[in-house]
Amino acid sequence: MDQKDIRKLLEQVKNGDISVDEAIEKLKISPFEDLGYAKVDHHRGLRQGTPEVIFGAGKTPGQILGIVNAMRGKGEKNILITRLAPEAAEEIARSIELSYDPVSRIGLVGRKSEITATGTIVVATGGTSDIPVAEEAAQVAEALGNRVERLYDVGVAGIHRLLSKLDVLMSARVVIAVAGMEGALASVMGGLVDCPVIAVPTSIGYGASFNGLAALLSMLNSCASGVSVVNIDNGFGAGYLASMINHIGGTI
Amino acid sequence: MDQKDIRKLLEQVKNGDISVDEAIEKLKISPFEDLGYAKVDHHRGLRQGTPEVIFGAGKTPGQILGIVNAMRGKGEKNILITRLAPEAAEEIARSIELSYDPVSRIGLVGRKSEITATGTIVVATGGTSDIPVAEEAAQVAEALGNRVERLYDVGVAGIHRLLSKLDVLMSARVVIAVAGMEGALASVMGGLVDCPVIAVPTSIGYGASFNGLAALLSMLNSCASGVSVVNIDNGFGAGYLASMINHIGGTI
Amino acid sequence: MDQKDIRKLLEQVKNGDISVDEAIEKLKISPFEDLGYAKVDHHRGLRQGTPEVIFGAGKTPGQILGIVNAMRGKGEKNILITRLAPEAAEEIARSIELSYDPVSRIGLVGRKSEITATGTIVVATGGTSDIPVAEEAAQVAEALGNRVERLYDVGVAGIHRLLSKLDVLMSARVVIAVAGMEGALASVMGGLVDCPVIAVPTSIGYGASFNGLAALLSMLNSCASGVSVVNIDNGFGAGYLASMINHIGGTI
Amino acid sequence: MDQKDIRKLLEQVKNGDISVDEAIEKLKISPFEDLGYAKVDHHRGLRQGTPEVIFGAGKTPGQILGIVNAMRGKGEKNILITRLAPEAAEEIARSIELSYDPVSRIGLVGRKSEITATGTIVVATGGTSDIPVAEEAAQVAEALGNRVERLYDVGVAGIHRLLSKLDVLMSARVVIAVAGMEGALASVMGGLVDCPVIAVPTSIGYGASFNGLAALLSMLNSCASGVSVVNIDNGFGAGYLASMINHIGGTI
Amino acid sequence: MDQKDIRKLLEQVKNGDISVDEAIEKLKISPFEDLGYAKVDHHRGLRQGTPEVIFGAGKTPGQILGIVNAMRGKGEKNILITRLAPEAAEEIARSIELSYDPVSRIGLVGRKSEITATGTIVVATGGTSDIPVAEEAAQVAEALGNRVERLYDVGVAGIHRLLSKLDVLMSARVVIAVAGMEGALASVMGGLVDCPVIAVPTSIGYGASFNGLAALLSMLNSCASGVSVVNIDNGFGAGYLASMINHIGGTI
Amino acid sequence: MDQKDIRKLLEQVKNGDISVDEAIEKLKISPFEDLGYAKVDHHRGLRQGTPEVIFGAGKTPGQILGIVNAMRGKGEKNILITRLAPEAAEEIARSIELSYDPVSRIGLVGRKSEITATGTIVVATGGTSDIPVAEEAAQVAEALGNRVERLYDVGVAGIHRLLSKLDVLMSARVVIAVAGMEGALASVMGGLVDCPVIAVPTSIGYGASFNGLAALLSMLNSCASGVSVVNIDNGFGAGYLASMINHIGGTI
Amino acid sequence: MDQKDIRKLLEQVKNGDISVDEAIEKLKISPFEDLGYAKVDHHRGLRQGTPEVIFGAGKTPGQILGIVNAMRGKGEKNILITRLAPEAAEEIARSIELSYDPVSRIGLVGRKSEITATGTIVVATGGTSDIPVAEEAAQVAEALGNRVERLYDVGVAGIHRLLSKLDVLMSARVVIAVAGMEGALASVMGGLVDCPVIAVPTSIGYGASFNGLAALLSMLNSCASGVSVVNIDNGFGAGYLASMINHIGGTI
Amino acid sequence: MDQKDIRKLLEQVKNGDISVDEAIEKLKISPFEDLGYAKVDHHRGLRQGTPEVIFGAGKTPGQILGIVNAMRGKGEKNILITRLAPEAAEEIARSIELSYDPVSRIGLVGRKSEITATGTIVVATGGTSDIPVAEEAAQVAEALGNRVERLYDVGVAGIHRLLSKLDVLMSARVVIAVAGMEGALASVMGGLVDCPVIAVPTSIGYGASFNGLAALLSMLNSCASGVSVVNIDNGFGAGYLASMINHIGGTI
Repeated sequence: MDQKDIRKLLEQVKNGDISVDEAIEKLKISPFEDLGYAKVDHHRGLRQGTPEVIFGAGKTPGQILGIVNAMRGKGEKNILITRLAPEAAEEIARSIELSYDPVSRIGLVGRKSEITATGTIVVATGGTSDIPVAEEAAQVAEALGNRVERLYDVGVAGIHRLLSKLDVLMSARVVIAVAGMEGALASVMGGLVDCPVIAVPTSIGYGASFNGLAALLSMLNSCASGVSVVNIDNGFGAGYLASMINHIGGTI
Repeated sequence: MDQKDIRKLLEQVKNGDISVDEAIEKLKISPFEDLGYAKVDHHRGLRQGTPEVIFGAGKTPGQILGIVNAMRGKGEKNILITRLAPEAAEEIARSIELSYDPVSRIGLVGRKSEITATGTIVVATGGTSDIPVAEEAAQVAEALGNRVERLYDVGVAGIHRLLSKLDVLMSARVVIAVAGMEGALASVMGGLVDCPVIAVPTSIGYGASFNGLAALLSMLNSCASGVSVVNIDNGFGAGYLASMINHIGGTI
Repeated sequence: MDQKDIRKLLEQVKNGDISVDEAIEKLKISPFEDLGYAKVDHHRGLRQGTPEVIFGAGKTPGQILGIVNAMRGKGEKNILITRLAPEAAEEIARSIELSYDPVSRIGLVGRKSEITATGTIVVATGGTSDIPVAEEAAQVAEALGNRVERLYDVGVAGIHRLLSKLDVLMSARVVIAVAGMEGALASVMGGLVDCPVIAVPTSIGYGASFNGLAALLSMLNSCASGVSVVNIDNGFGAGYLASMINHIGGTI
Repeated sequence: MDQKDIRKLLEQVKNGDISVDEAIEKLKISPFEDLGYAKVDHHRGLRQGTPEVIFGAGKTPGQILGIVNAMRGKGEKNILITRLAPEAAEEIARSIELSYDPVSRIGLVGRKSEITATGTIVVATGGTSDIPVAEEAAQVAEALGNRVERLYDVGVAGIHRLLSKLDVLMSARVVIAVAGMEGALASVMGGLVDCPVIAVPTSIGYGASFNGLAALLSMLNSCASGVSVVNIDNGFGAGYLASMINHIGGTI
Repeated sequence: MDQKDIRKLLEQVKNGDISVDEAIEKLKISPFEDLGYAKVDHHRGLRQGTPEVIFGAGKTPGQILGIVNAMRGKGEKNILITRLAPEAAEEIARSIELSYDPVSRIGLVGRKSEITATGTIVVATGGTSDIPVAEEAAQVAEALGNRVERLYDVGVAGIHRLLSKLDVLMSARVVIAVAGMEGALASVMGGLVDCPVIAVPTSIGYGASFNGLAALLSMLNSCASGVSVVNIDNGFGAGYLASMINHIGGTI
Repeated sequence: MDQKDIRKLLEQVKNGDISVDEAIEKLKISPFEDLGYAKVDHHRGLRQGTPEVIFGAGKTPGQILGIVNAMRGKGEKNILITRLAPEAAEEIARSIELSYDPVSRIGLVGRKSEITATGTIVVATGGTSDIPVAEEAAQVAEALGNRVERLYDVGVAGIHRLLSKLDVLMSARVVIAVAGMEGALASVMGGLVDCPVIAVPTSIGYGASFNGLAALLSMLNSCASGVSVVNIDNGFGAGYLASMINHIGGTI
Repeated sequence: MDQKDIRKLLEQVKNGDISVDEAIEKLKISPFEDLGYAKVDHHRGLRQGTPEVIFGAGKTPGQILGIVNAMRGKGEKNILITRLAPEAAEEIARSIELSYDPVSRIGLVGRKSEITATGTIVVATGGTSDIPVAEEAAQVAEALGNRVERLYDVGVAGIHRLLSKLDVLMSARVVIAVAGMEGALASVMGGLVDCPVIAVPTSIGYGASFNGLAALLSMLNSCASGVSVVNIDNGFGAGYLASMINHIGGTI
Repeated sequence: MDQKDIRKLLEQVKNGDISVDEAIEKLKISPFEDLGYAKVDHHRGLRQGTPEVIFGAGKTPGQILGIVNAMRGKGEKNILITRLAPEAAEEIARSIELSYDPVSRIGLVGRKSEITATGTIVVATGGTSDIPVAEEAAQVAEALGNRVERLYDVGVAGIHRLLSKLDVLMSARVVIAVAGMEGALASVMGGLVDCPVIAVPTSIGYGASFNGLAALLSMLNSCASGVSVVNIDNGFGAGYLASMINHIGGTI
């Protein structure tokens, strides 16, 4: 119920078209639909042409299919499914056309997005084991219309690997630093670039890594400015946020 | 040693003005100053007219004064000092002109910055006790050239307080959500806006808040997209990052 | 040994039907059955017509059947079994009539209870993954004679979903807020209603949710009044407590 | 703005006493007071004659005085201030009449409340050191119109102390169990009574009590039904919730 | 109410001296004093001639004096006060005769106990900083009638210090191993002796000792048989338990 | 090398049967067997007729068989194997005669021990799920020559169950309290008896029990005197220590 | 690009064989290979004749084979693969000659190294379950050219086992102490020897060992000088570091 | 009792100067003095000319003076006192000549040591706040006869600062990396050098640094080879260990 509706309602009251009691009842039932609507609108503006996203973890192939079909029923053409197990992907692919990447475990219904943001997002990892999380971030960002550069296996224990890619790094409008173990990559990158660095701790490691806790704490304590952190293994969150920031920088 | 210096050196080699051995020695000594220089340059571009920042915690008034004077010696006119204790501020103010805010514990040498970014940063807090951290974020952002709107004491236990300010919230290009205790503010705001939300857990609380751990974990687990987290009580980091993001959105 | 038994015993002593020594022996053997009786009596009053409850986790189908049969031997007609694995349910259903819900993993021997309390218990969840825990709470409450309203997937990241159901929420005499991840639902609901809110953290989440720890701490630190917390995933405990409170409000 | 106000407004619109635009403006300014109103109304019903509560921790005497005066300006006569340090109490008492209890650290402006609920709240502690937290709970409950019975120092290491007070315990409509160290009191009481038990872990203890963590975990894992937990040392929260539950049981 | 009282009551019932109703009333009021009495009796047997113990921490000098006087009023002659701060000791010593040891922070009212157990308790520490906790244990054990041998500063980093005292160690009926930092003393001693070892972790250490947590975990994981653990810094508990065990070995 | 061997060696030196150099060599090679011998001797005294113990966890059936055969080669007749998986037991039973209890997962080679200590060890559990750990303790104690009484499922949430067994409890010379979840059993028992209580936290529970951490902390913080704690699920350690203490009380 | 290459480049510039611009381009592309080269060179010096190491965990047999073949393509003859699962070893062994040790899970391509360091590394374990980690350390050290002595199962609960091997221990230039549970071995060894002790906590244990945390904290708090710690179960790291230190002591 | 004493004893036995029983008694009393002596000897060899070390924390000035005087009584000329508070230093300096450094809080009695090891130890810090811990390490290493190079404030957030000092870094035989906050310095240095890196986490930081825990975990998880870790703030331990390793590399 937006201002126009309220005005209309008040005028109906004024004109005696509806009773005061009826007006109260209408005001009581739906005051917060305004809120919802306002928000959805905003969303529309942002997402124009980019896919909807379904979090696949903990959902059965049947449930995912149901949501996909409902979305397509509303006219949504491109749908991204994250954390989709290979077996589930296989089962879904029997019903609808789905392109699936087993590394990032992302499934895509529809076509790849076109690039809508002018800047570049650099996604870097400390090691090769961090790549699945990084790919989740990278492919989500690509699906949301961003140009993505990958810098994998540039961990700080061999700093020259990272430094030899400085030109790529310096070209970024946003950096996503994905690392497990000691998670030092975020600080080093935060010190090298002048753009926002989104740090993604991963659960890669053993012993005192405590399933990503060490990397998480390390990243939260980064002595470099411009670094913020998302949840352990949250590639999606990083990719989504990076896209938000990159689109602030202007759309194509 | 920047490109020009290298070119000059190579030309000296070419012209026989210096020997190959001397050139090797020069290249060996300072190869990483290139790197530094590249970075500093970037900085200059970004910071034009904004102050340098000194982290005041754990430094004596004498040490701070020393750094301030060194900076001013290099021509820096506006200098921000964070985490500056009132007694230290008083002592420093005896030597140089300093405007000091006891709430944010920020001291400013020089003039306030002019606004250089087109967007607005909204800084919100869950409670009144979170205000010092929020003010650190807000004043850092202002000092870096941003327009800042404050929404204080809009914690989720009285959601109507937050909802009644939706217009302010919706106007933000970046939101900084500052909250202690259960830290739920970040999730609620992340659900309301479509811009990046920087979550700052505070150490406000008692018992099972474990000095901000509860808020920190809560914020890291936010189910809203677009939320990232900085260290507990790290108002400076949030303000700095918000400014970075806001300047991506265009400068004045 | 209840008051009547003691009275009878004392009268037997008085009448010389038994000796003082025999009486002492009887009092010595079972003094705490008095205590128990008082309690059991209370129970009777409360539970009239409601089922007994068996905690199924860690019990073999055979053990559960044994307990069920023992209870039925004592005249108990309605028996609820919580945390009952599907395979165990299947095996038990071969011996006795059992209605089983795979979502809440609750099995019911006998008939559904009639409603005995006048108020309504609202059970809400942050996401769809929290539903199994919520259903455990809801079905336990129903089995204990309560009217239950479900508000699922009203997490705070989309606050309008929750706000659009305010009428349901406001009708509650007790609210059960079930949420994993950041667990902010409890605080928001605690701020909206004026009745007791029982918060149930769930182990839904990943990374820094630490199997429900983040939600647990968040709920314990709720800044809203009227909120208390039970163990992670403890749907049964929440449903049982809600029923207790709801029956204080008068029985039908 | 409550229903009556809205009705009045609508009738003014109907009668042409105010214009539609003016009505919209009024609805726009305070739409969430509606929400609040629903809530506040409830409150009114509940609180009739009971004081407002100010959380005194982290507020200066001046700030507290300001809030008190603002409340009194709105006609509030009885105001409770929790976590009020003795020095702050002394300072406030110079300006307004304040009765202060140094044990619970509660200050009261105005008169003691009359009892409005029919049931009794039993507040029990494991040891004598837990009494300040218990008194906060007890006095808050009394201020909100409840009859309170105290059972102090009935810790489980001397279970006979608790058992000798069974009659008091059995008379409760709600029990508040306050204990530090191993926090076993909550489980034992939960096993003895058939009413809700609100467990309050305290920070009393040393070494592996980890400032109340041991008691908190113990209480969350209670094997007794009907037990829920609030934050460490949160006497206020327990007293407030207990009052809510007790008033469900009927008001005088 | 002990067996004699019950017998007397039953005989009064038998003789018609009191009515059945009166008897029920009396049984109802104090059934658990039986329990208490049984326990107290046991205590008497054990403690004959040994002092009562007051936990002094968190009690004002006035409160301690009150308890002491109450105990003396009941005929108790020897009273031990643990965790007594020097200032409190001084204040108490103004009112009653008190011998105070500032190392163990134990105050004694009355005379030292005579030795009542035949065995010897060895109290050992890893370092000199652990001595205050060890002395609490040792002096409590002495006050309860035990012969105590001290082996201080025999930490495992200089294992020869411990091994050179094997004769003392081998003479023990119970060993109390007091150590902070890595707490390895308990395991080494557990491997050397064949009697019970009570391990007391202390909060001595810094950094990753986490106030005694490292020593606590180390001791709980002891690979030696016969080792059990009490709370961090709980010298009293160790001394009390050692005395219990030592008295099993026969009294003088 | 035991005292007899040293004496023999010295006499050989005295008689000139071996040279001083040869004697030094022999003393040098095995000086610590003296130490061992002292200990082993003690052991012999204690264990006369009781079995050796093998920790079965993490050993293959083949390795266990090897150790058993080596022990039997040295004349050991009774051997206890703890933490023996059913499949391993089955495999071992093909080679040698083995009686195996699947609940405690203890295997016994040889005959049951005769009772050698005069006292009784009471083993109690909070719930039925704690029984496997309790049986490990009980059967180890029995194998070491102790009379054991079992009090299972007497958890504090139904305190009357425990109180109704006070006579059994009071007869104990040592009590082993086995409990998971909130672990309150140890404190309650510690308050009821005057003998040592060995507390065994178990990993039974879910959510905030954190695999036994809640019970462990609870037991370490017990407010009852005479309680000490062993590792989570360490039934063997409790049984072994209880036997040690019980044998101090005199052997048969 | 090493010094020789730079020299060559500069001489080409000097001689006019390439232009200054071309030289700048070449310096720009690979400035950090200089850095790398310096490092690699160092490596060469150290590793002469010793194998390269591949961390096998989390890599497929195919990936490992790929890396091995790439290394062999560069002339590397001896390659060590750590954390290699038996199935992966089997699969790899089908393609290339591989010697595999299932205990340490190390695979070796090529020949065993010759000893290049003069000192001896002693690798000790607390128990037999720690041997796999110890063997990883020992075999890595051997592969890097070190003489290794093994002292297994010399845990501190039977200190005589360790002491009887003092001669072996005293001969060490570096000691690796591998232990789980309470991890006390590191402190005891640190007290016995005067050479560096590298402590390796293992995840062996249960309950409050928290997967090696207890041993880790214990070792970090060692009261012996000369002890440092690597990650839980990090046998490779310990062996590598020990080899580094041992080679400082002179090469053969 | 060393070999000579044993030989003498055996000869006395041989000659009949003492009886076999007397010899047994003597062997029994002091077998472990051999051990101690052997160890001390080793020490002497190592320490020739270097000072003894006293851990000053937790000791009164009087206690420290007492130990110093005792050491000097035994001929020790150079004594180092670590963790010495300024006030204590002042008080000690009144009695004996003491040079004191308030940054490292190290006091030195006697003269500075001469350099005895051929290699160089590099001590680096992430920030300026880590310098006190670094100075403790550096000055301990110097006092033990090592050449030390300091690289302060070379944290990874400005990696060029570290890289510009590569020549110093590459000259090290041992590196001590001192860092708080995210502790990434250790990994970066471990990747740059080929010598042992001793990582010292510091308690510098706030919020989620948890007093050095973040840096500690980060360092334990270092992905660089050759890194080991000591306790938080343990500068002494790092300096001592570095000296041990450096002396392996040859003495002057």
